[in-house]
Amino acid sequence: MFEAAELGRKVSKKTFAKEEPKLHTELLRVQRELVKASVPVVIVVSGVEGAGKGDVVSLLHRWLDTRGIQTHAFWEESDEESERPRFWRFWRSLPPAGTIAIMFGSWYTKPVIDRVFDRKSETELDQELSRIRSFERLLTDEGALIIKFWFHLPKDVQRQRLESDKKKATRAKPSPLLKKFSKRYDRFATVSERTLRQTDTGPCPWHIIEATDGRYRDLSVGRILLDTLSRRLSAPVSSTEPKSETAPGATEDSVTILDRVDLTQTVSEADYARRLSRHQRAISGLSWKMHQKRLFTVAVFEGWDAAGKGGVIRRVTRAIDPRLYRVISVAAPTDEEKAQHYLWRFWRHLPRAGHMTLYDRSWYGRVLVERVEGFATERAWRRSYREINDFEEQLARHGIVLMKFWIHISPEEQLRRFREREKTPWKQHKITDEDWRNREKWDAYAGAVNDMIAHTSTAHARWQIVAGNDKRAARLQVLETFRRRLSKTLGS
Amino acid sequence: MFEAAELGRKVSKKTFAKEEPKLHTELLRVQRELVKASVPVVIVVSGVEGAGKGDVVSLLHRWLDTRGIQTHAFWEESDEESERPRFWRFWRSLPPAGTIAIMFGSWYTKPVIDRVFDRKSETELDQELSRIRSFERLLTDEGALIIKFWFHLPKDVQRQRLESDKKKATRAKPSPLLKKFSKRYDRFATVSERTLRQTDTGPCPWHIIEATDGRYRDLSVGRILLDTLSRRLSAPVSSTEPKSETAPGATEDSVTILDRVDLTQTVSEADYARRLSRHQRAISGLSWKMHQKRLFTVAVFEGWDAAGKGGVIRRVTRAIDPRLYRVISVAAPTDEEKAQHYLWRFWRHLPRAGHMTLYDRSWYGRVLVERVEGFATERAWRRSYREINDFEEQLARHGIVLMKFWIHISPEEQLRRFREREKTPWKQHKITDEDWRNREKWDAYAGAVNDMIAHTSTAHARWQIVAGNDKRAARLQVLETFRRRLSKTLGS
Repeated sequence: MFEAAELGRKVSKKTFAKEEPKLHTELLRVQRELVKASVPVVIVVSGVEGAGKGDVVSLLHRWLDTRGIQTHAFWEESDEESERPRFWRFWRSLPPAGTIAIMFGSWYTKPVIDRVFDRKSETELDQELSRIRSFERLLTDEGALIIKFWFHLPKDVQRQRLESDKKKATRAKPSPLLKKFSKRYDRFATVSERTLRQTDTGPCPWHIIEATDGRYRDLSVGRILLDTLSRRLSAPVSSTEPKSETAPGATEDSVTILDRVDLTQTVSEADYARRLSRHQRAISGLSWKMHQKRLFTVAVFEGWDAAGKGGVIRRVTRAIDPRLYRVISVAAPTDEEKAQHYLWRFWRHLPRAGHMTLYDRSWYGRVLVERVEGFATERAWRRSYREINDFEEQLARHGIVLMKFWIHISPEEQLRRFREREKTPWKQHKITDEDWRNREKWDAYAGAVNDMIAHTSTAHARWQIVAGNDKRAARLQVLETFRRRLSKTLGS
Repeated sequence: MFEAAELGRKVSKKTFAKEEPKLHTELLRVQRELVKASVPVVIVVSGVEGAGKGDVVSLLHRWLDTRGIQTHAFWEESDEESERPRFWRFWRSLPPAGTIAIMFGSWYTKPVIDRVFDRKSETELDQELSRIRSFERLLTDEGALIIKFWFHLPKDVQRQRLESDKKKATRAKPSPLLKKFSKRYDRFATVSERTLRQTDTGPCPWHIIEATDGRYRDLSVGRILLDTLSRRLSAPVSSTEPKSETAPGATEDSVTILDRVDLTQTVSEADYARRLSRHQRAISGLSWKMHQKRLFTVAVFEGWDAAGKGGVIRRVTRAIDPRLYRVISVAAPTDEEKAQHYLWRFWRHLPRAGHMTLYDRSWYGRVLVERVEGFATERAWRRSYREINDFEEQLARHGIVLMKFWIHISPEEQLRRFREREKTPWKQHKITDEDWRNREKWDAYAGAVNDMIAHTSTAHARWQIVAGNDKRAARLQVLETFRRRLSKTLGS
């Protein structure tokens, strides 16, 4: 794979001087158009040590308007990063729409290095590469542009460079990494080739660049960048496709999973009080144990308007020391959130080791409200089942205890609660015109819920459907599940 | 100070049942008005262990609309937090305008505990309390509302609670901290009293609450909250004062510090190339050493339009491995940034140990463009000198090497560069109508720069005025300073 990057190609000083100003001017022009088109761009800078990756990063800063660039270097993980699923640090560094993120080191760095130094098996590398493909696809599907550069040096050139850097008074001292890697050149080449081969996909191809001659390297980067950016601007992708006219609502079947829920069960007040306090006391102790063992919990609460999500969440959190949990109420996204992939704002709040995050509404908004109201295209929300499953699998793989509750009530019960809310002074703020409008779309929502559960109730993240007509029964069911899951996780 | 909170006050079940719904309804109403008035609210929940602080946090979640609340617990510092100045973690948790942050544990926790366990002297405590006063004032000056609760229990009650919690099957198990603190009750009381006394200020008074009876405690919290929020809504503070009509521009003196800058020096190309590469090589090595010793650098670049800030920054960064630095180009704030104190977006980007942040424009925008253009009131920008000095002192105290460069050019040189930019294809994007407009206000800006330097060139953060008419000379001056500062810090 690297043979084509060992041809000894060069660019003369004269050619460079002639070409560069043109490239520079053109790059600035397309960058301005990218801002207008709100395209987020990720430039991955990787390759062998000594190939001048740092110089390329500096070059990009010179060629592009730095106000729209952010460079991210991924090497040492902070504990906030290492305590979260591996991709968290990449999510937090993604470029907002209209800007460019230069990834110096990237999601490729650790898998390659781990394999080079035999910390991971080939199978593990392959699995990780498959996750990377999913990650990149998820970004490009939402309209991001990913440009991946791999800078290559033949073995002898790398060694020469190491020697000469030591002696000569060049601009920068050689990075301490150069020496370490030059010893393992062959191994590194094998692993990289495997990596590149498996992640050289249609929407995210690799550009392998011969880096022996600096001017050739730089001009190549400039041309590829200009070409890729220009093509992207002239061919908008799916994310900008027109919204489908008919918001797809109810499924074909008029009977949904929800129709099977037994809503008749009730719990007496005395029984409730007794069981509630027993569960809460148990959860209190379990949550401290989870903390001591540095384990994580993520709980998702979804349900009909007025299903009692808030009340359920408060019964759970009352049992837990406020230092151990955070409740994230999902409201309208901020503009920093809007400028990112829709999953970004949920990644953002993932708990650290020993902590819990409770989401009051969640990423499932994509396949519920966004689907029914037509905010997302059919293509987009259909795609998101897989994206969500991937996301949840990452949580599960990281050891996060993930619980998902759909709190179900009947339309009649909802009506009763809406009316009660209108009458009760401290509940009036909870009922808006929007709630009444949503209610009219009950069947469309029921269909969406049915599909959501069908597509996303997976082995590592089962949906728990909670019968909510009786608030007490619903709360006990959630608390019991919560308690059981923590207990099982702790093996107690 | 705590005697008034040992009176054994109680509230009957009946009174509570009558009062609570009213409070609840009213609190929801004022909360909605706070959103409209864009007031950020900080509720500090502190006091002795066992007083039911966790219960109060749960209560607030029940009384208020949780969509506008975020709870933050401050105990274990992550390494991302511990590597930054102490207040960084509080800055990152501040509420956006219109929302409420409940601080469970706060900036008070560590100073009190450190003193209780004799890790810090009384003088150190006092110093820290003075910093807290500055911090709180800075927030309230910008329109934030800080409500501080201290929950008190008499000694015997705390001990009883510890005992009974162990035995009884109460809802939650006692926090592991309760036992630890009950042993040091007296010491804790002395240190807390000192803390409260010194931080009981006009805009941020302490509310000491007798917590022996839960209902009394809860009703007190509700009433104080309601009262404070209502009063804040009916009496808007300085931040909402009308903008001053006449934007204060030039100082009385027509001669400014800038007039003393010798702009005649030049450097030959050969000399420049030689010295540049020598400096860069030195900085390259020094930056790796800084990294190894986990030291930080913050550099601020300000200057006239077209003074060559970008070029200077690139000469510095070319010498440094891109993994070690980040350049923050200060552009228009995002809405998450706009909803915060103006210093928030700079705190956000402070480097971790071993890293550097270079700010291309900075917090000084407040006393330059915001002053001259009248975006900030005179009261606000005058106040910010002190806020900025405090901020920089925190950086210095944390061991961050702070450099501030003002790159100066003459108006004639600026004109020459503007015209050159208009003619050069890859420079055209750098020149806008705004630049020409700013140019017309040269004298006003010169006055603002003069005052800025006069007020903020402090022992721990000196301004370096760079003669920028000759670009080569300017770059060398910056690089030399950079090199010397790093070198001095490393003691090499």
